[in-house]
Amino acid sequence: MGSVREETISDMEKRITAYHEAGHALAASELPDTDPIHKVSILPRGMAMGITQLLPEEDRHYYPKAYLMDKLSVALAGRVAEKIVFNDVSTGAQNDLKEATSLAEKMVAQWGMSDKVGPLNLGRGEEHPFLGRELAQPKRFSEEMTWLMDQEIRKLITDAESKAEEILADKRHVLDNLAGALIKEEVLDRDDVERIIKEASPKP
Amino acid sequence: MGSVREETISDMEKRITAYHEAGHALAASELPDTDPIHKVSILPRGMAMGITQLLPEEDRHYYPKAYLMDKLSVALAGRVAEKIVFNDVSTGAQNDLKEATSLAEKMVAQWGMSDKVGPLNLGRGEEHPFLGRELAQPKRFSEEMTWLMDQEIRKLITDAESKAEEILADKRHVLDNLAGALIKEEVLDRDDVERIIKEASPKP
Amino acid sequence: MGSVREETISDMEKRITAYHEAGHALAASELPDTDPIHKVSILPRGMAMGITQLLPEEDRHYYPKAYLMDKLSVALAGRVAEKIVFNDVSTGAQNDLKEATSLAEKMVAQWGMSDKVGPLNLGRGEEHPFLGRELAQPKRFSEEMTWLMDQEIRKLITDAESKAEEILADKRHVLDNLAGALIKEEVLDRDDVERIIKEASPKP
Amino acid sequence: MGSVREETISDMEKRITAYHEAGHALAASELPDTDPIHKVSILPRGMAMGITQLLPEEDRHYYPKAYLMDKLSVALAGRVAEKIVFNDVSTGAQNDLKEATSLAEKMVAQWGMSDKVGPLNLGRGEEHPFLGRELAQPKRFSEEMTWLMDQEIRKLITDAESKAEEILADKRHVLDNLAGALIKEEVLDRDDVERIIKEASPKP
Amino acid sequence: MGSVREETISDMEKRITAYHEAGHALAASELPDTDPIHKVSILPRGMAMGITQLLPEEDRHYYPKAYLMDKLSVALAGRVAEKIVFNDVSTGAQNDLKEATSLAEKMVAQWGMSDKVGPLNLGRGEEHPFLGRELAQPKRFSEEMTWLMDQEIRKLITDAESKAEEILADKRHVLDNLAGALIKEEVLDRDDVERIIKEASPKP
Amino acid sequence: MGSVREETISDMEKRITAYHEAGHALAASELPDTDPIHKVSILPRGMAMGITQLLPEEDRHYYPKAYLMDKLSVALAGRVAEKIVFNDVSTGAQNDLKEATSLAEKMVAQWGMSDKVGPLNLGRGEEHPFLGRELAQPKRFSEEMTWLMDQEIRKLITDAESKAEEILADKRHVLDNLAGALIKEEVLDRDDVERIIKEASPKP
Repeated sequence: MGSVREETISDMEKRITAYHEAGHALAASELPDTDPIHKVSILPRGMAMGITQLLPEEDRHYYPKAYLMDKLSVALAGRVAEKIVFNDVSTGAQNDLKEATSLAEKMVAQWGMSDKVGPLNLGRGEEHPFLGRELAQPKRFSEEMTWLMDQEIRKLITDAESKAEEILADKRHVLDNLAGALIKEEVLDRDDVERIIKEASPKP
Repeated sequence: MGSVREETISDMEKRITAYHEAGHALAASELPDTDPIHKVSILPRGMAMGITQLLPEEDRHYYPKAYLMDKLSVALAGRVAEKIVFNDVSTGAQNDLKEATSLAEKMVAQWGMSDKVGPLNLGRGEEHPFLGRELAQPKRFSEEMTWLMDQEIRKLITDAESKAEEILADKRHVLDNLAGALIKEEVLDRDDVERIIKEASPKP
Repeated sequence: MGSVREETISDMEKRITAYHEAGHALAASELPDTDPIHKVSILPRGMAMGITQLLPEEDRHYYPKAYLMDKLSVALAGRVAEKIVFNDVSTGAQNDLKEATSLAEKMVAQWGMSDKVGPLNLGRGEEHPFLGRELAQPKRFSEEMTWLMDQEIRKLITDAESKAEEILADKRHVLDNLAGALIKEEVLDRDDVERIIKEASPKP
Repeated sequence: MGSVREETISDMEKRITAYHEAGHALAASELPDTDPIHKVSILPRGMAMGITQLLPEEDRHYYPKAYLMDKLSVALAGRVAEKIVFNDVSTGAQNDLKEATSLAEKMVAQWGMSDKVGPLNLGRGEEHPFLGRELAQPKRFSEEMTWLMDQEIRKLITDAESKAEEILADKRHVLDNLAGALIKEEVLDRDDVERIIKEASPKP
Repeated sequence: MGSVREETISDMEKRITAYHEAGHALAASELPDTDPIHKVSILPRGMAMGITQLLPEEDRHYYPKAYLMDKLSVALAGRVAEKIVFNDVSTGAQNDLKEATSLAEKMVAQWGMSDKVGPLNLGRGEEHPFLGRELAQPKRFSEEMTWLMDQEIRKLITDAESKAEEILADKRHVLDNLAGALIKEEVLDRDDVERIIKEASPKP
Repeated sequence: MGSVREETISDMEKRITAYHEAGHALAASELPDTDPIHKVSILPRGMAMGITQLLPEEDRHYYPKAYLMDKLSVALAGRVAEKIVFNDVSTGAQNDLKEATSLAEKMVAQWGMSDKVGPLNLGRGEEHPFLGRELAQPKRFSEEMTWLMDQEIRKLITDAESKAEEILADKRHVLDNLAGALIKEEVLDRDDVERIIKEASPKP
């Protein structure tokens, strides 16, 4: 019964949010194939929500696998930051996980980006254009194939998570600085993020 | 044919209820990451129902895994008390089990809190916002993945149950005192519970 | 082609019914955690139906596992009596088996009464409150978990059947007396059953 | 290209029909737990259909397993006669197989007549009272249990078939006489069947 | 890029069609339990379709397994001819394969013609009398049984294909003559086919 | 955060498109059983789409397996070109993979072109003539058969991909020339393609 802690839930949630968004932002800055950061922001105490916006500068028609792998790492980096800093994970990553899982599913099941499944597109994860969700069509492929796809989807996600963990553990001091700035300023734009990273980085 | 016992079913049920609620209350008090107790009460003889109310003092936006694990233990502690005291379990824990299973399902299948499943959110256990129950969408993942999730859900629940068993077995005398007070008073507030625990605890 | 027997089908069915109900009644009397017998009756020759009514003396809110195990044994004891006496089983136990299976399913799948499944409630066997049957919701758990539950359901039922077999084989002479009285009287109340058991029992 | 045989298809079909019905009739006469024969008949050449009617002399309420096993053997005996006499099987047994499979399914899945499945009634094969076919309810039991039931259903049927084969092979001369009489008379009543069996049997 | 061949696709398709139909016709003539040939015809160049019509001379009510096995061989013999002559198979056999698979499915799953499945009729492949396709009833049998049936269906078909291959390889010169006559005449009646076979056969 | 590259996404996408289409065109030219090329074109910078059109000169009624295998290789060759040149794959091949998978599914499941599945047509992948998608009919075959088909579908596709890889790796200089010409001209007709191949090829 956390009676000693009860006054600080709101402050603690602000800290969690700040580190979560700082994780997204730091991964997006460090990975080679991501879109540039537009803005990172957290809401004032008591609202506990944040957002990291990236800005694709031109319309893309092709998404290479390297770009998508980095996108997965960025999506998971918020949760990775929570794990590294607070040694726990929270329900706050639910939408990040959903987005990452859905993207990895398309990579494996529609875009042929898993060697074990091969260059097949059996329509898994395809959405009805109007209803925005899968059709109740009979599934065309086997349970074994679905399980093979599930394992490959999980592998893409855990590979991307490891990448994010490596970056955030390696730049822990940058992560602290970014989170601290977010707690203080609540909004950081691209230049702010780049400045904080630059100031923290030149330790050699 | 329990003819010797038949006059006492109502009294026995009151005792079971008292120990069941005392189990919830004691686990909630002893575990580090729970909300504080608001009130514990049982209905008069012949109605055989009870309730343990916890009171989150502020709105939370993040639920850390540690908090959720303790919530599972509290939910299961009523049934654990029955097992320890009466050496039997009853149908009275049905809703506790349902709540715990549903929470553990979300932990594993939506919030990435099982290492074996990994940080995936495949939508299992997601409810339709209006209908309050799952959509009849085709399941997107394999039987093997479902079985892996089932095993991890069961593991979270049995881990949480073991924790509750440890606490209640260790503080059996406190459990007896709480149950006795409930049989006598029918309602205990937070201060009552804390006083009973304090009085029972200082055995050193 | 049973031409030698054909006149006696109706009489034989009366005998089967009498032993079937005597089996229910004897098990209900001998097991420790059952409700008391209210009435045992069979319909006259040519109608071949019987009923054993138990009478819970107070409303219960909790059903302990011990009570439910005995309830399973009583439900199966009619068929066990047929097996012991006629060395065959008949279609007459269909509803008993259905009731027992449905109860064992709830014990395993909703009330956490199987150690192998654990304290989970995944909603199996839950009925729609108005339609009186299961909803066509997508099943949330795996085939493996369903099979584990099936095995545990079968184990509860065969354990309960063994218990009934033990009692009825041990008290075969009481079973004969009860069946004989039923064939003669067609209705026995609680006192009749207790008297017959008492008269038959004191062989030491 | 059976040009040498083409004039005789109709005659051959009459012979097949006669043996098929003679098989049903002989098995019904020889097995101990069947209803008595009412009439055996085949339609004139070119219609190729036959029927063996049994006559339960009283309404039954219980169907013992022994009675049902013999019923399975009688249902399969028409096809067994084709196999023994013509060394081939034909499509003519389709309804017999359907009836036998459906009965064996109920024995295993509703009446607890398989030791391996045990005294369970999980509702398999239950028909909707008005629609005359299974409800589209979600299946409650596992694939493994379904497979176990399938194997036990097949075992009951092949056991019953072996019994029919034993009888018909042993009384091949009676089978020939019954089929011959059917080809000649087209209708046989119970007395005719009993006379033919008696005349053929006393070889000692 | 078959530029050297492009003028001859229509001619080649006529040759394929001729051999395909000649395969059906030769198998139908050589196998012992088939209906007699009525007419074999191919459409003029550019339409690339053919048909081999058999003529059952009387209505049959029973279809023996031997008759059905030969029917399977005839259905597959068109594709077998393509394989033998052109060392390739084409999409042209789609309907033959569908007809053969559907027939083999009924043999195994409705008419008890597989020893491994046994004399069961579990309704697989049964069509709704009005809708002309299977009802959306819940499947009553297990995946394992379905797989066993699938293997037995495949075995019937590959056995029948082997039989057709044996005949066509053995009578390759007759096949050539029949195909040649079809290319020239476009229609052959029963007498033509018999004459060509007779002229080609007496090589001893 | 690819800030150094951001001005060149549109140009890079044009290059990817050019190589993707050049891959299709080169495979179509080199493989023996394909239709001739009609036109290869890419859209101007910023639209990033391309098309390779083949021209069947006559209507075909039969599609031999050899023709279909080459069609699979041509469909996959665009993605193969991306892999060879850019050492990555992109989402741009989604429709190619879908077309190839759907064709390979028909080869295995409707046209009997897999030896392991055999000459069966169980209707997998059959579309409703009006709705343009599969009927919600109950699946008639087993999971094991579906998995066997899945493996055979994948094998056809990976065999076809290997063939395309072999051709494109072997003629890398032709691929470069074709892509270069496409970037410059945006449209190439059949004569252009043949000329470029001829100019690049005579290296001996």
